[in-house]
Amino acid sequence: MKAAPQLPPASAWMPLVARALEEDVGTGDVTTNAVVPIDARGTALVMARRPLVTCGLGVAEAVFAAVDPSLAVARAWNEGEAREGDQPLLRVAGPLRSILVAERTVLNFLARLCGIATFTRRFAQAVEGTGCVVVDTRKTLPGWRVLDKYATAVGGAESHRMGLFDMVLVKDNHIAAAGGVAAAIAAVRANAPAHLRVQVEVESEADAEAALAAGAEWLLLDNRSLDELRDLAKRFGDRAVLEASGGVTLESVRAVAQTGVHRVSIGALTHSAPGVDVALDVVGPA
Amino acid sequence: MKAAPQLPPASAWMPLVARALEEDVGTGDVTTNAVVPIDARGTALVMARRPLVTCGLGVAEAVFAAVDPSLAVARAWNEGEAREGDQPLLRVAGPLRSILVAERTVLNFLARLCGIATFTRRFAQAVEGTGCVVVDTRKTLPGWRVLDKYATAVGGAESHRMGLFDMVLVKDNHIAAAGGVAAAIAAVRANAPAHLRVQVEVESEADAEAALAAGAEWLLLDNRSLDELRDLAKRFGDRAVLEASGGVTLESVRAVAQTGVHRVSIGALTHSAPGVDVALDVVGPA
Amino acid sequence: MKAAPQLPPASAWMPLVARALEEDVGTGDVTTNAVVPIDARGTALVMARRPLVTCGLGVAEAVFAAVDPSLAVARAWNEGEAREGDQPLLRVAGPLRSILVAERTVLNFLARLCGIATFTRRFAQAVEGTGCVVVDTRKTLPGWRVLDKYATAVGGAESHRMGLFDMVLVKDNHIAAAGGVAAAIAAVRANAPAHLRVQVEVESEADAEAALAAGAEWLLLDNRSLDELRDLAKRFGDRAVLEASGGVTLESVRAVAQTGVHRVSIGALTHSAPGVDVALDVVGPA
Amino acid sequence: MKAAPQLPPASAWMPLVARALEEDVGTGDVTTNAVVPIDARGTALVMARRPLVTCGLGVAEAVFAAVDPSLAVARAWNEGEAREGDQPLLRVAGPLRSILVAERTVLNFLARLCGIATFTRRFAQAVEGTGCVVVDTRKTLPGWRVLDKYATAVGGAESHRMGLFDMVLVKDNHIAAAGGVAAAIAAVRANAPAHLRVQVEVESEADAEAALAAGAEWLLLDNRSLDELRDLAKRFGDRAVLEASGGVTLESVRAVAQTGVHRVSIGALTHSAPGVDVALDVVGPA
Amino acid sequence: MKAAPQLPPASAWMPLVARALEEDVGTGDVTTNAVVPIDARGTALVMARRPLVTCGLGVAEAVFAAVDPSLAVARAWNEGEAREGDQPLLRVAGPLRSILVAERTVLNFLARLCGIATFTRRFAQAVEGTGCVVVDTRKTLPGWRVLDKYATAVGGAESHRMGLFDMVLVKDNHIAAAGGVAAAIAAVRANAPAHLRVQVEVESEADAEAALAAGAEWLLLDNRSLDELRDLAKRFGDRAVLEASGGVTLESVRAVAQTGVHRVSIGALTHSAPGVDVALDVVGPA
Amino acid sequence: MKAAPQLPPASAWMPLVARALEEDVGTGDVTTNAVVPIDARGTALVMARRPLVTCGLGVAEAVFAAVDPSLAVARAWNEGEAREGDQPLLRVAGPLRSILVAERTVLNFLARLCGIATFTRRFAQAVEGTGCVVVDTRKTLPGWRVLDKYATAVGGAESHRMGLFDMVLVKDNHIAAAGGVAAAIAAVRANAPAHLRVQVEVESEADAEAALAAGAEWLLLDNRSLDELRDLAKRFGDRAVLEASGGVTLESVRAVAQTGVHRVSIGALTHSAPGVDVALDVVGPA
Repeated sequence: MKAAPQLPPASAWMPLVARALEEDVGTGDVTTNAVVPIDARGTALVMARRPLVTCGLGVAEAVFAAVDPSLAVARAWNEGEAREGDQPLLRVAGPLRSILVAERTVLNFLARLCGIATFTRRFAQAVEGTGCVVVDTRKTLPGWRVLDKYATAVGGAESHRMGLFDMVLVKDNHIAAAGGVAAAIAAVRANAPAHLRVQVEVESEADAEAALAAGAEWLLLDNRSLDELRDLAKRFGDRAVLEASGGVTLESVRAVAQTGVHRVSIGALTHSAPGVDVALDVVGPA
Repeated sequence: MKAAPQLPPASAWMPLVARALEEDVGTGDVTTNAVVPIDARGTALVMARRPLVTCGLGVAEAVFAAVDPSLAVARAWNEGEAREGDQPLLRVAGPLRSILVAERTVLNFLARLCGIATFTRRFAQAVEGTGCVVVDTRKTLPGWRVLDKYATAVGGAESHRMGLFDMVLVKDNHIAAAGGVAAAIAAVRANAPAHLRVQVEVESEADAEAALAAGAEWLLLDNRSLDELRDLAKRFGDRAVLEASGGVTLESVRAVAQTGVHRVSIGALTHSAPGVDVALDVVGPA
Repeated sequence: MKAAPQLPPASAWMPLVARALEEDVGTGDVTTNAVVPIDARGTALVMARRPLVTCGLGVAEAVFAAVDPSLAVARAWNEGEAREGDQPLLRVAGPLRSILVAERTVLNFLARLCGIATFTRRFAQAVEGTGCVVVDTRKTLPGWRVLDKYATAVGGAESHRMGLFDMVLVKDNHIAAAGGVAAAIAAVRANAPAHLRVQVEVESEADAEAALAAGAEWLLLDNRSLDELRDLAKRFGDRAVLEASGGVTLESVRAVAQTGVHRVSIGALTHSAPGVDVALDVVGPA
Repeated sequence: MKAAPQLPPASAWMPLVARALEEDVGTGDVTTNAVVPIDARGTALVMARRPLVTCGLGVAEAVFAAVDPSLAVARAWNEGEAREGDQPLLRVAGPLRSILVAERTVLNFLARLCGIATFTRRFAQAVEGTGCVVVDTRKTLPGWRVLDKYATAVGGAESHRMGLFDMVLVKDNHIAAAGGVAAAIAAVRANAPAHLRVQVEVESEADAEAALAAGAEWLLLDNRSLDELRDLAKRFGDRAVLEASGGVTLESVRAVAQTGVHRVSIGALTHSAPGVDVALDVVGPA
Repeated sequence: MKAAPQLPPASAWMPLVARALEEDVGTGDVTTNAVVPIDARGTALVMARRPLVTCGLGVAEAVFAAVDPSLAVARAWNEGEAREGDQPLLRVAGPLRSILVAERTVLNFLARLCGIATFTRRFAQAVEGTGCVVVDTRKTLPGWRVLDKYATAVGGAESHRMGLFDMVLVKDNHIAAAGGVAAAIAAVRANAPAHLRVQVEVESEADAEAALAAGAEWLLLDNRSLDELRDLAKRFGDRAVLEASGGVTLESVRAVAQTGVHRVSIGALTHSAPGVDVALDVVGPA
Repeated sequence: MKAAPQLPPASAWMPLVARALEEDVGTGDVTTNAVVPIDARGTALVMARRPLVTCGLGVAEAVFAAVDPSLAVARAWNEGEAREGDQPLLRVAGPLRSILVAERTVLNFLARLCGIATFTRRFAQAVEGTGCVVVDTRKTLPGWRVLDKYATAVGGAESHRMGLFDMVLVKDNHIAAAGGVAAAIAAVRANAPAHLRVQVEVESEADAEAALAAGAEWLLLDNRSLDELRDLAKRFGDRAVLEASGGVTLESVRAVAQTGVHRVSIGALTHSAPGVDVALDVVGPA
């Protein structure tokens, strides 16, 4: 039974929250300071304007707390829930100035995180029942790696390696530099930490054979036709984990998943997920 | 005659570069360190796979330099140029390990910055000749404000306020808190720094009259029909700068621009610009 | 009715507090650690030795809290109040070691912030009834911009631009580089964000005419005689906001204000405000 | 023979330079970017408008380099030299945009550092020949401790302790907490690191005797009359280093120095030194 | 053929260098500034006083460069070489003040890094020919993880996981929380990223069988007798990677390695490696 | 009566805690997140496996709090107490995931800090009754200066200077650069801040005489035989503080202390203290 993804340690994303507030608030919200009385209090709802998968509520709470620890925030939805539009995600109450100062930063975080989770969920649902899983990539936004990957997990994808450090992935440039697949994997086995799994991008069946013979555990099959994938899955599917990649869309993902590969990785989950429409409505005094 | 936008001071975005490298490279590229000889050298091209407007070459250069100051990087295109696909943007030469370590971070930066510039350019071209300009918003990605807005400028949009600190923008919540448009603007004039311009979101012609009478300089017209915009432009267009906003698309932007408003602001420039397809090809030894 | 200035977001000045404590306390207060029992408690008053305008109480509270969150601090005066000397500003109670560790840093902050507010208040009072306002400049102490400008606001001045980013101010070097006032302002209108107001330093009536014709909104009149200011005010006072600057003193400020200019900016508010005499007296056990 | 003071390690003050640039330049100099062509070059002089002691040339150079490493900066004066006004301190050449961006931050640093050095030099000259030295205090500006103390050294003062960590200074509150001078010094000798010198503030001759008997090495004599200082100097001057403090001015410092005390400490050196008048003149193309 | 370990990216350890210099140099080297003329130049050798394996030369170079980029540093040994004592590791030439300021920090880094490499090399040599490798642990010094593990690699050990993020290691507390080995591994397979290898600590043969059946890849055998290890190796050695751990010393390591396990992990490599004796000798002018 | 050492201000070591957690936890504990239910709670004991002197309980508490402020931590021993093994130092209760995430970092801190305190205590006990004190050195681990020296203080040593900034220590290289002992000390007296004590390393009795004549207060006697130390103590012991150093061990320290020197400094306290064996046992639900 699958556990809910755990939001990464705050130390891994609070610097981004701090920077986001600095760039938006800077030396102060000149409008709010001028117009809203310093002792005004308010209650506001963070609203989903359209259907979405909630993601990033903990980050939004941290933004509110960073602006003003006296703000009281309550969740109206659970993280990861899919709901219809025009429903509140969060309720926040306290000094009205603080709510308005935090507004745009909270919404910008949620628009992206819910956006990725919502988009990913559609891919995950598209492959349901095939036995193949959707996985993300390193095509995340600079500065957002852990949050982007948390959002894909909330959406239902599996995380691929976090960075260059937590898995060996031998790609074309490595193979060229080493002088062939077998030499590349031999170098990996001699030099790379053995506790890291080894995946190799292969261009042909011969390469695949060589890779497995040399000790590769996973094969990456980039930009292959469905027929090629089916052939490779038949031949290697019980000897290695097979991952397909390359231009997979919502339209094509199920067909790819049905070829027999174990994983399909999709850069678009993070580089092309559209932001969702969220807004903050002040609904009354605190 | 319009000057080329200046890339913001590095101090405003180098922390993002540093963080991007940390999250991707971490304690080291285990594959490259294992497979590529420490003294191997290479030359690579950063390629545009599809037509795009170049943006972020200076950032990409900074990424390469942060990984290894001995890498030599040369620009094949100028910042802001629009070209067809399958052309190189940058040429980089030096230690092959360093090129491969920097690869993904460089590409992730360029995919977004070129993506925003390319998307924005289409909006800018759509309004050409109307006298109306396209402007961006604060719906940028947290941590990316200055780079996102630089990319919209490269694309041909005009920058709206950078944050809550460099312009007064009185919105519905402020008006409600103050008890009306006139009271809100009176508070602005009493309390906000006078060197900042004052824009007010107005819901009706009466509000617009009240706002101008109270000293507002710009009016924000959110989610209005084309007819309403035309009426407002006729009545107020020579007394204030009028800005239309709300759900404007590539399809609708020219019609909005032709209503007579002076500016049209579009959140999608930064919250929904699709990433462009860029790649790094190793083409030979250094 | 004027609202009290809001202390800028703590994120904008807590780094200065942290640094101030590091440079004073470093690896520990060797004297206090040696002499004062670890469980000794005390109550102390932060005293104004001479008449002053209180400013920076929130900063002082943050210093005490940074040293020891268990210290209880209460305000005896309100921010911005002017009082006679020999009166307490703050009362602090808790571990005596913590009070003594924080003492000098608290006093150094208050001496400057109250100093600027007190000095500025005298200028603000000097121009009362003239319709002209006193404004500050960018001649603040490096690292202190937001606090220095907060203190001038508490004193009664209006804030000029916060930095190079939140207003266009065309000065002599810009005009020379552009080849004249008109060319400079044309460049501004073509290239600078339109949401920023445009002020121009003018050397002559001809320049002033050219500037206004080209679209300047404010004029800066630097180092002019009272007669010149009166003439310029008569001619341009209802077409632009006029700001006088240059060597204005407490003695001369009212005369300048009476020439008809709208603003008089004074660098001395921040570069020459004398520190005020504040001290910490331990008055008993906690 | 006295060596020139060494500018503290850059690591101790570059954070202040970085922060100063951030607060002034922020996301960019909108005026310069709009008006000055990106390829314009210039030469400028940093001028002393009035007589001063130069101080902080190394800091100014670091500011220019932080803005643009391609700027060429040459010193026209030596650090610590006293000269008449209307003379250049530094010559800088390179991209004109960079010079204008750095201008105000450079001037703000120099105004304070030259200001302190100039003011201190007058005190140092006032005591020449008396055998007494002028020393600074911890009444420095928060964030500026090492630079403020460097400037007093350039001016001719001797540095007192850098912070609470590099000397034991037993003051009235410590004595009260310990239950007397002798008990306080006994605690110091038991608990404080022995490599730190021990100074004690004494209120009476009896206290002074007790302090010396208990092992104090230096005595601090706060707010004493000239007669009292003379008596104390006669009695204790060859048994301990005596330091006078409290409200000493340029008018009174020589009389204090002539009482026979060894040191006179003056908070005004750093809390009340007036800024000096420095400016940047663009004198031609680069 | 084994490649030389690559020093981790400077971004991963330069903060430690910066902090080390701050804590040692602080506001300046009062002795050197007072005694050594500012223009004195010198040449010095960093000497190994006893036999050692060199490690950390790149870090030492970075320390010298951080103190003064004008120092010229040349390596006399290669990284990873084992040599007799009384030989120079590095030669440094330039401003004598800078050499003396850097001295202690350089030596403190080298003493630890050479110390770990030297100590590890002895373990690596002790198991030569057995087919078993020595691996390090997470018992590194806080703040030193990447450098400590780099030093064990230079010494000849293999790196175990870098932290809690780059491998799954199911230990006793996890098994207890999950309710058994099989349940724990099932949870791992459901929830942990599949690209990470799975190691399980097992207490019995039954546990080992259950672990392998559930999908574990590596087994950790903690605090077992040689006989137990031999039995486990016989039974499971060709079905999983076996790692022995627990109190292994230089005396016992070969016997453990000969039991048939594949890896032996040793916390002492990093928590108990004695520092080696290195010194800096000034040998002449620069 | 000796006061307990005060843990240095958290600002001086929390960055090390933060960094330690980042390097161990990084983007998350993949095992614990997969296996331990998010709502599981636990109680655990931090156990001393062998006799030790407790040190660093405050740091350990800060680690737990940094991971999860909701963890409740209680001390079972007092800081500085010596106890037998198999006893708990701390009890922690709360979310089990948080306990397991913090475990290794807490143990790594305690292993070193208790290790230094335990090792130092043995030296301190070895010299009891001799009137000579044990002092530490600057041979601390980079990044650990204040914690290492806090641990020696807890162990019973006296702190030597914290760094290059809080005492003058004239060593052989300085003397050579100055051209002799007398010249070096004359330079110190002319140039170094007078509030810092002056220690000089002397190679001969003649040097010692010269040093004292020139104003040195302490003498450092490096690598001398017991006979030499006795002679020097007889001749100079009542005219200066004498400190012996150089290769002193637990076996030799008492003999050195009995020569009549006042202090014996021992680098091994921090560069060679073995880590102690501490562990975390989960003992039940929270």
